[in-house]
Amino acid sequence: MIKEQIPDIIVGRLPRYLRTLLLLRETKTTTNSKELGELLGFSAAQIRKDLSQYGEFGKQGTGYNIDYLIDSLNRILNTDKNWDILLVGVGQLGQAILNYPGFLKHGFLVKAAVDNNPEIIGQKFNSCVVQDVRNMKEIITENQIQIAMVAVPAEKAQEIAEELVEAGIKAILSYAPATLTLPSQIRVEYSDPLISLQHITYYL
Amino acid sequence: MIKEQIPDIIVGRLPRYLRTLLLLRETKTTTNSKELGELLGFSAAQIRKDLSQYGEFGKQGTGYNIDYLIDSLNRILNTDKNWDILLVGVGQLGQAILNYPGFLKHGFLVKAAVDNNPEIIGQKFNSCVVQDVRNMKEIITENQIQIAMVAVPAEKAQEIAEELVEAGIKAILSYAPATLTLPSQIRVEYSDPLISLQHITYYL
Repeated sequence: MIKEQIPDIIVGRLPRYLRTLLLLRETKTTTNSKELGELLGFSAAQIRKDLSQYGEFGKQGTGYNIDYLIDSLNRILNTDKNWDILLVGVGQLGQAILNYPGFLKHGFLVKAAVDNNPEIIGQKFNSCVVQDVRNMKEIITENQIQIAMVAVPAEKAQEIAEELVEAGIKAILSYAPATLTLPSQIRVEYSDPLISLQHITYYL
Repeated sequence: MIKEQIPDIIVGRLPRYLRTLLLLRETKTTTNSKELGELLGFSAAQIRKDLSQYGEFGKQGTGYNIDYLIDSLNRILNTDKNWDILLVGVGQLGQAILNYPGFLKHGFLVKAAVDNNPEIIGQKFNSCVVQDVRNMKEIITENQIQIAMVAVPAEKAQEIAEELVEAGIKAILSYAPATLTLPSQIRVEYSDPLISLQHITYYL
């Protein structure tokens, strides 16, 4: 299996499978593509096809062992280990990110946060003390951080992203309403409600 | 052209094209698939192919007229009109949503917000007074709202979503880290950083 050859659209569905399996595990030990499909709004055939890209997870008639499938998906997604994250921008959204307990529960630790506002620098949110953005590069190097979340205004996002890449960041989750233009080997995901809303209204 | 027959993966890229075109318009009047592709990290061929689903927008050699393409994309995405939105859940994230000026700029008005916390109900954020979630159904009906944003805890999301659909909501943008199981005609998008992070780590 060569991970890079599997279409990204399939990869994007794997975290959703994982989430639903974690929920199912609370009450049962096995599931099947029909049940997963109903919960997720996908067809059973699609789920079987997606998972088959990565091997054999279920048996005809007996379905999937939930624990085994969760472990496998975590291994495939590289979420069987912990990841440190740098947060850039600690405005209202950044503060909500720092206070959100869900990241840590899934192995993502916001290791450091930076801002350029003197009133925010030094403040503590959920045990993370905000540092000066001017120290960003050293923080990344010292902590060998590979992932950054960017919650800065749109007009600052490209500049910050370039600095992050220069400092060694490999992947960015951007909350800024701006498209980032970065080297192709840098992985960028957007958490952008406007894009989602404009996607929604297409169908209304 | 039958909009529903065009793959959703293509539809999902259109808002990104629109965003980049709005940025380009600040400095120029025409562009081409090569330039758009470089800015967006897609191939020029993909952009030509995506746009060709909806007609002829450019001429060989002269490229695209930016204004015309923006107008066309707004018409295709139904963002050439304004949309009212109901926000459910006014915790820290919900407050950030209410205070974010970007929605209105693009024709999305958070018309009403509801919460179940007596300390939050009655508070005003960015000219929107938070109402009691118990009045949710009437608010939707009276204002004929079709789109809801859900920023409630994961364990409440499914229940709230079902109530929203019952009250007439046609599309949901969910910030809750939970998969919603709803009738297939209801359009659901997720703004879910954990899913994005787990998508990112696949490639690291």
